[in-house]
Amino acid sequence: MKKTDVGALFLGPKSENHKFFKEMLNFLIDEHIHWRRDFHPDDKPYISFPEQHEKLFQSTIDRTQDVLLNLSSMLKASSEPWFSPRYLGQMNSDILMCAALAYMATVLYNPNNCAYEGSPATTPMEIEVGKQLAEMLGYNLENAWGHITADGTIANYEGLWFMRNMKSFPLAIREVDPNFPGVKGKTEWQLLNMPTRRILQLITDTEKVGKNQEFFERCRDRSVRGTGETDALGVLLVPQSKHYSWTKAVDVLGIGRHNLIPIDVTDNFRMDIDELKKEIENQAAHKIPILGVVSVVGTTEEGAVDEVHRVAELRRRYEKQGVSFYYHLDAAYGGYTRTIFFDEENSFMHYDGLKTFLHEQGVIHQDVAWPPKDVYEAYKAMPEADSITIDPHKMGYVPYPAGAIVVKDKRVRDLVSYFAPYVFAEEKGEEDPQLLGAYIMEGSKPGAAAASVWAAHRLVPLNVTGYGRLIGRSVEVAHRFYNSLHKQRSFKVSYEDKKGKKRYRTFKVVPLTRPDFNMVCWAFNEVGNTSLRRMNGLTLALFKKFQYIDGPVYYDDFLTSHTEFTLENYGQAPETFLRKLGISTKGYTDKQGVWVLRASLLTPFLDVEKVYKDYWTRFMKTIKKTIAEVTSVPRK
Amino acid sequence: MKKTDVGALFLGPKSENHKFFKEMLNFLIDEHIHWRRDFHPDDKPYISFPEQHEKLFQSTIDRTQDVLLNLSSMLKASSEPWFSPRYLGQMNSDILMCAALAYMATVLYNPNNCAYEGSPATTPMEIEVGKQLAEMLGYNLENAWGHITADGTIANYEGLWFMRNMKSFPLAIREVDPNFPGVKGKTEWQLLNMPTRRILQLITDTEKVGKNQEFFERCRDRSVRGTGETDALGVLLVPQSKHYSWTKAVDVLGIGRHNLIPIDVTDNFRMDIDELKKEIENQAAHKIPILGVVSVVGTTEEGAVDEVHRVAELRRRYEKQGVSFYYHLDAAYGGYTRTIFFDEENSFMHYDGLKTFLHEQGVIHQDVAWPPKDVYEAYKAMPEADSITIDPHKMGYVPYPAGAIVVKDKRVRDLVSYFAPYVFAEEKGEEDPQLLGAYIMEGSKPGAAAASVWAAHRLVPLNVTGYGRLIGRSVEVAHRFYNSLHKQRSFKVSYEDKKGKKRYRTFKVVPLTRPDFNMVCWAFNEVGNTSLRRMNGLTLALFKKFQYIDGPVYYDDFLTSHTEFTLENYGQAPETFLRKLGISTKGYTDKQGVWVLRASLLTPFLDVEKVYKDYWTRFMKTIKKTIAEVTSVPRK
Repeated sequence: MKKTDVGALFLGPKSENHKFFKEMLNFLIDEHIHWRRDFHPDDKPYISFPEQHEKLFQSTIDRTQDVLLNLSSMLKASSEPWFSPRYLGQMNSDILMCAALAYMATVLYNPNNCAYEGSPATTPMEIEVGKQLAEMLGYNLENAWGHITADGTIANYEGLWFMRNMKSFPLAIREVDPNFPGVKGKTEWQLLNMPTRRILQLITDTEKVGKNQEFFERCRDRSVRGTGETDALGVLLVPQSKHYSWTKAVDVLGIGRHNLIPIDVTDNFRMDIDELKKEIENQAAHKIPILGVVSVVGTTEEGAVDEVHRVAELRRRYEKQGVSFYYHLDAAYGGYTRTIFFDEENSFMHYDGLKTFLHEQGVIHQDVAWPPKDVYEAYKAMPEADSITIDPHKMGYVPYPAGAIVVKDKRVRDLVSYFAPYVFAEEKGEEDPQLLGAYIMEGSKPGAAAASVWAAHRLVPLNVTGYGRLIGRSVEVAHRFYNSLHKQRSFKVSYEDKKGKKRYRTFKVVPLTRPDFNMVCWAFNEVGNTSLRRMNGLTLALFKKFQYIDGPVYYDDFLTSHTEFTLENYGQAPETFLRKLGISTKGYTDKQGVWVLRASLLTPFLDVEKVYKDYWTRFMKTIKKTIAEVTSVPRK
Repeated sequence: MKKTDVGALFLGPKSENHKFFKEMLNFLIDEHIHWRRDFHPDDKPYISFPEQHEKLFQSTIDRTQDVLLNLSSMLKASSEPWFSPRYLGQMNSDILMCAALAYMATVLYNPNNCAYEGSPATTPMEIEVGKQLAEMLGYNLENAWGHITADGTIANYEGLWFMRNMKSFPLAIREVDPNFPGVKGKTEWQLLNMPTRRILQLITDTEKVGKNQEFFERCRDRSVRGTGETDALGVLLVPQSKHYSWTKAVDVLGIGRHNLIPIDVTDNFRMDIDELKKEIENQAAHKIPILGVVSVVGTTEEGAVDEVHRVAELRRRYEKQGVSFYYHLDAAYGGYTRTIFFDEENSFMHYDGLKTFLHEQGVIHQDVAWPPKDVYEAYKAMPEADSITIDPHKMGYVPYPAGAIVVKDKRVRDLVSYFAPYVFAEEKGEEDPQLLGAYIMEGSKPGAAAASVWAAHRLVPLNVTGYGRLIGRSVEVAHRFYNSLHKQRSFKVSYEDKKGKKRYRTFKVVPLTRPDFNMVCWAFNEVGNTSLRRMNGLTLALFKKFQYIDGPVYYDDFLTSHTEFTLENYGQAPETFLRKLGISTKGYTDKQGVWVLRASLLTPFLDVEKVYKDYWTRFMKTIKKTIAEVTSVPRK
């Protein structure tokens, strides 16, 4: 199998690849410098040598240097050392050298992908990236379409925009022509429960009527886009574990937060499918439509992978009963992990023999058994969704800003596009849109982001030989970390009592749940303690030592993040975890949640077993020392 | 006066400052490389020398080089030469060296300004930039607040989000407590016409009631944010010349496009204040509230500056009659021009003597008389608006992505923020927000954009000594270009007839309108021609020669953009222009608009009069040659 060397992809925790990085960068800059000089070579310079020797010129240059050195000092004084395996916090790590260099080089050309005329070079790259992502997510390239967004939040908004405008379209057609085939004779309930594929067909059908798609335009104008009326559209069902952008999304898109219904998660933090069923049936009983359902592939706080295959199956089942909904996946974090399941020929592999194959190819080592069947099935079923959010700036290892959205069927664009549909229709024949900004949420957008993702995808194949290997390392180290925590169970911490006598306390450590992906949450508790408040006190005191919220972070031994599960937001989900820790669930309320330490293990540098073992030893040593420090502080 | 040398700010059309650029960049990269190595210096390298000598490692490096050289070739083959004065199209030019270097250096640290914990270095920079912009826009720093957005479109959405949630707040309070002071005894009409400053006071008043601001939370929850109901909120008035993002905005925010009402523009393409009055009175007569009014400071197609002072005055007047509305400025393009009016001590200068001062200081040369009184008054009145969109990536000369929004009173944030208000209240005392993403539209966002704008503002003062000088050059060249077109009037073009005999045709050139700012539109017409269709044919044929939509752009002599004014979108506005061209207005319809060539003159390199004159001579020579080319092609 042709492979990618992961170590050659990064500048490295010790700037190991610094020579290549600098040489390459300088060459790219020289290319740009001479490109300028080669544009009408006979044009005279506009900044003359005499001007360059003037005092004011020199003082402006000096000040430029001052500002930039100041910036550099500030960056060095308080940036997070994401490049280092000592950082185990948010979804951050070192980024691909190729992507960083592509971004930096493209800044000089400063293309704007809003309109093709502002980015003849980078718009085609964005189109290509959209196709690559669509293919990797299992969509049919004939119909699918994707583009880069500023971030996952904007991608989620855009998904809700599609969802909302589609849901209102059948009713809008009926208003314009009650006899239109496909809506004729249907009740409001039936029109609001039309499967997405039929609504897409109605777009096509209405566009065919009349001159210049004037009939379609009238229908579109009666949809929520024209009227702003969202009352009839029903409710959006999301797991409790949703990203907070969904709470903003229903506000921004005018759906209203009352229409956002969180579905309980199980104790492994995946959406509880039985609860989802109950809610769908409850709403249907009250004749309230389901606007849409969102599943999360890689929750932000727990890395949980929702059972996409079960939701997709549910949708098929309810459709037969006359209830249907739009299905969006928020795979901002976990989407790229799908690359692990593609073999060298880009075929999605069978589950049988998959783990053995990954071990044999060194993608994931023998000590880690991943994926479980349900995670595999969830990834396999992703193309059943109508649209998917996926962030290159998370597991794509590229710099900010690069989110993305991919839709299964691009006809949905006509319901949000700005242009008269016939203008758009003309454009459809072309590969490169003249004005991307006319049918996405954003306007001006950096072509450098497209160049960066494009370069990353060119270098690192979106299958097991490329991103699969890279993300495999991350999944592997997360499982190693989980296993280490799990095996550790209890340990002694020595401290001195008030009289200076050495004493011991015993602590236990419990991971929240087996990771579906590459995130691990955990908590420490003193053996015998049953108070949640006290355990939270320890967690927060430890976090304060390992945090990066104030003070210098550069000298920290380890860096991690934390999160809280409250009764209000998470219901009974954390109770299994509390039981294992010996904590009484009585103290767990809306106001007092469960605090845990939280590590997103993106680092590609702990794949060698010996390196990992040394790392774990140092980690536990630091933990013991820090627990001794924070628990010996006299309580207030 | 302490000045900035404009020539020292850019890499330059001929890469004149290449030595400094490369030296500085290399130093910044070295800083980063050693920063990595200095983090726990005793940690061993993770990418060993033996690994670096492996075949797979080398082949991955080789492929990286391949991809990046390929990228570089693609960028060079079809990027726009924005650095050159030969490019006179969209709002693009060379970008500030300092901003480009700051962006490039920060990419390596890859901060994420969504949360402070992802960007301890660059979040404070974003806060500082927000303050600088607020101050430059004339807001009181005690109350104002601003932040960077992905672009002006997102900033406009955010303005509409504020507007929408504020408009619905008084009604929401009444629903929760009809006796609450401030809403008690008021009719629905009165509540929907409450001036923004009173709504802001109601935020403060409701937050004071009850424990943990629970009363405020209940009110907020009854606003459109919770209910999604926008029906009662009324209509948004925008000038015909609005950016298309407003059409998207009313769709996205659930206002509905039926509630977007375009107000006619005058023949200088500013919102017609009489028409605005009529519309407000018409709506009020039908008891429909005005959700908000938007003025544009620098329209995208014409560079027109709406008369902000007159709208502000109108608002004050109508307020006395019980009609009020939110006022937003879309100054994405023209906002930075306000810097010209600040003297060295950052005082906003009087109009008397301003032009003389600008001439004396060499900000604008003697041959250009700018600003007219109404443009000055419009800029002066900007702080009367409730919020303002302003794009650093346009007249801030920084790379994409960097839009921004500034609000006059930050209390409005509480109506859109995600967090429970008391959490947010705690945070209010702090300078640096822990989670910016909780009260802006976006989530993850590049800290590099903040660093880039921050560095630009540090180097280039936001007054007449810095940005004023830079933008002054741009305003100056726009007026020179306008004057040249205006003075040119008619000219002869020679061509050969079918028999090879030399003949002449006479053409005239007419600029659309005197520029308010730095954009010029114009058209050529053969003397005697009265057909709009024929004139449009010439404009489009010329554009095809000077365009950058397909084919190589690198060899073009001049590059420009174009735009169309249709009857549907622009009403009678272009008729004066057509008359001057000798074109019959009969042909001007919804379907056949007026095509013009369009140049945004951001270039800072045509300030020397002799250089400009040579430039103009070459320009007219090319024009004559090209007209001959395109008109001698046999008609189909």
